Amino acid sequence: MNINFLLNKMHENNIKVSIFLKNENIKYITGFYPSSFGLVILKEDPILLVSKMDKVEAEKTSNIPVEIFNGYNQVKNILNKNGYDEIHLEESIPIGICKKLNGSWKINITDFIDKLRIIKQDDEVSNIVNSICIAESAVKDLDYLNCSELEVMAQINYNMHKKGSWKEAFDTIVASGANSSLPHAIPNETIISNDVMLVDWGAKFNNYCSDMTRTRVESEKENEIRDIVIEAKNVGINNIKEGIPIAEVDRIVRDVISEYGYGNNFIHTTGHGVGLEIHEKPNIYFEHKGVLKKNMVITIEPGIYLENEFGVRIEDMILVKKNRAKVLTKLPEKFNFD
Amino acid sequence: MNINFLLNKMHENNIKVSIFLKNENIKYITGFYPSSFGLVILKEDPILLVSKMDKVEAEKTSNIPVEIFNGYNQVKNILNKNGYDEIHLEESIPIGICKKLNGSWKINITDFIDKLRIIKQDDEVSNIVNSICIAESAVKDLDYLNCSELEVMAQINYNMHKKGSWKEAFDTIVASGANSSLPHAIPNETIISNDVMLVDWGAKFNNYCSDMTRTRVESEKENEIRDIVIEAKNVGINNIKEGIPIAEVDRIVRDVISEYGYGNNFIHTTGHGVGLEIHEKPNIYFEHKGVLKKNMVITIEPGIYLENEFGVRIEDMILVKKNRAKVLTKLPEKFNFD
Repeated sequence: MNINFLLNKMHENNIKVSIFLKNENIKYITGFYPSSFGLVILKEDPILLVSKMDKVEAEKTSNIPVEIFNGYNQVKNILNKNGYDEIHLEESIPIGICKKLNGSWKINITDFIDKLRIIKQDDEVSNIVNSICIAESAVKDLDYLNCSELEVMAQINYNMHKKGSWKEAFDTIVASGANSSLPHAIPNETIISNDVMLVDWGAKFNNYCSDMTRTRVESEKENEIRDIVIEAKNVGINNIKEGIPIAEVDRIVRDVISEYGYGNNFIHTTGHGVGLEIHEKPNIYFEHKGVLKKNMVITIEPGIYLENEFGVRIEDMILVKKNRAKVLTKLPEKFNFD
Repeated sequence: MNINFLLNKMHENNIKVSIFLKNENIKYITGFYPSSFGLVILKEDPILLVSKMDKVEAEKTSNIPVEIFNGYNQVKNILNKNGYDEIHLEESIPIGICKKLNGSWKINITDFIDKLRIIKQDDEVSNIVNSICIAESAVKDLDYLNCSELEVMAQINYNMHKKGSWKEAFDTIVASGANSSLPHAIPNETIISNDVMLVDWGAKFNNYCSDMTRTRVESEKENEIRDIVIEAKNVGINNIKEGIPIAEVDRIVRDVISEYGYGNNFIHTTGHGVGLEIHEKPNIYFEHKGVLKKNMVITIEPGIYLENEFGVRIEDMILVKKNRAKVLTKLPEKFNFD
């Protein structure tokens, strides 16, 4: 990220100095993703503090000067030298570390980086699209007959690594039979049944995540449920454009499922932002007060979960454009892992 | 964990109510590991709050009553009903959430659960040993000739999943040639060279981690460096017993490497605790003020890193016994991935 752009944004928010510890924020600001601990002091002359282990790599990659982190007194000395009367911390900073940063300044919480990260730059979208390509190519030739859920999960992860993704965006879900009725099922050693197989997976490319879900179905009832989920997803996607209230997107999707009588079986939000983190703002939920903005990247992922029977979820990633949603995921929505 | 035991410990620490959000702490307390968000209010009548998605599983597994989380007002209402004048939070709780918990009580930070988790119960050791077995079996038949670092990493992860480990304990490191000189190298698409290959990997079993490193060497110099690292590791391990100052363990290991003239090339701590998290207390470092206690599980992992040349690290996991260290990792220390 261009540092002057960030400093201008800080200035607009009346922030003189802000401290970041979350690795995704450090990557966003400096271009360097710490392998363990990192800390950015964002101010007129910004600085990135890293562990000794990361110094060589950080100096190659970071767009701001790098020093070795020696403890929180070092941070306080830097702050003292500048005579700040207030400092700003990200929301996610642990209370234990916040305490170590106590000094002669007031501590405020800021989400100004989150607000920037919510709107994706062109190169960020391009990283996300690459991440989607890797993930989609990883499920094209799965061998799941007589395999356990864990084995299929292992195949998908293996394929994503082979395609150049260093790590999964999140724990890959492979859930068949009744296990698919749990939205966040943990794959186990059960052999995949001949009916439902729900797979929710994503890769990372240059630290950017992808996130998609497809559900294989077999019986008439399963097909019926999947058709409802797909209809809900598409009605949602077709209504998306810049300026639509986020709550409305959730309501539109939820209404389709409710009309078919499955409102109580859709037990999570309609979607979420995706970027350097798998779950970013905005949360697509009916209590959200904001609107969708151009260049947000979000998921639309309705699901219907029938306890002890089976569950179906279909999830696409979309880019918000002025007058429409651009669907970034390319796999057919009825992809059956054949 | 036995809840009465925990409540007694709280009582000893003069804590009436404590709130936990970290999933590993929730698992430790309740037996249930949330798939997304969870919150425990530990008090006379403790309660676990989970997302709607986790309710079915949480009710099956948790040893304390479960309710659906509806927001922080719900938590504050529960606290208000009990009329507490102070509450205790774990160190890792994000400042943003801490703010949402503001009320008519004083907020304190406590590490009493960390202090318990540092000493492993028998069933925890057994989970760790299972996790080690899975990880060790995953590197027995690697195919790394003409393979990239990423491909070898993919094989190891795949093998661990096939052996029943749902996820890696941390991002598997496979680093060859000059990449091995970075302690936290990220595997890339470079074909494995014929010299050094450093592999640092671990599995999870029932949420418990393993962590080990072996380094394949070829040349005389590489062999020499590996012999020094192994000597340092073993001198450290042979000195471990209940009561030894943690700083001394680090110093003993560091001294061996310094005597050979490589003190400045050992750029990280000697080890760390392992359990539900991959990095737990205690950090085996010369600034640590504590002593090793019976039934701690820690790593001993010296390394020598020669910039732009290569690096060697050898890492074992040990259980602290009364008069010795029990080495839990079984792979030969000169294992060459043959």
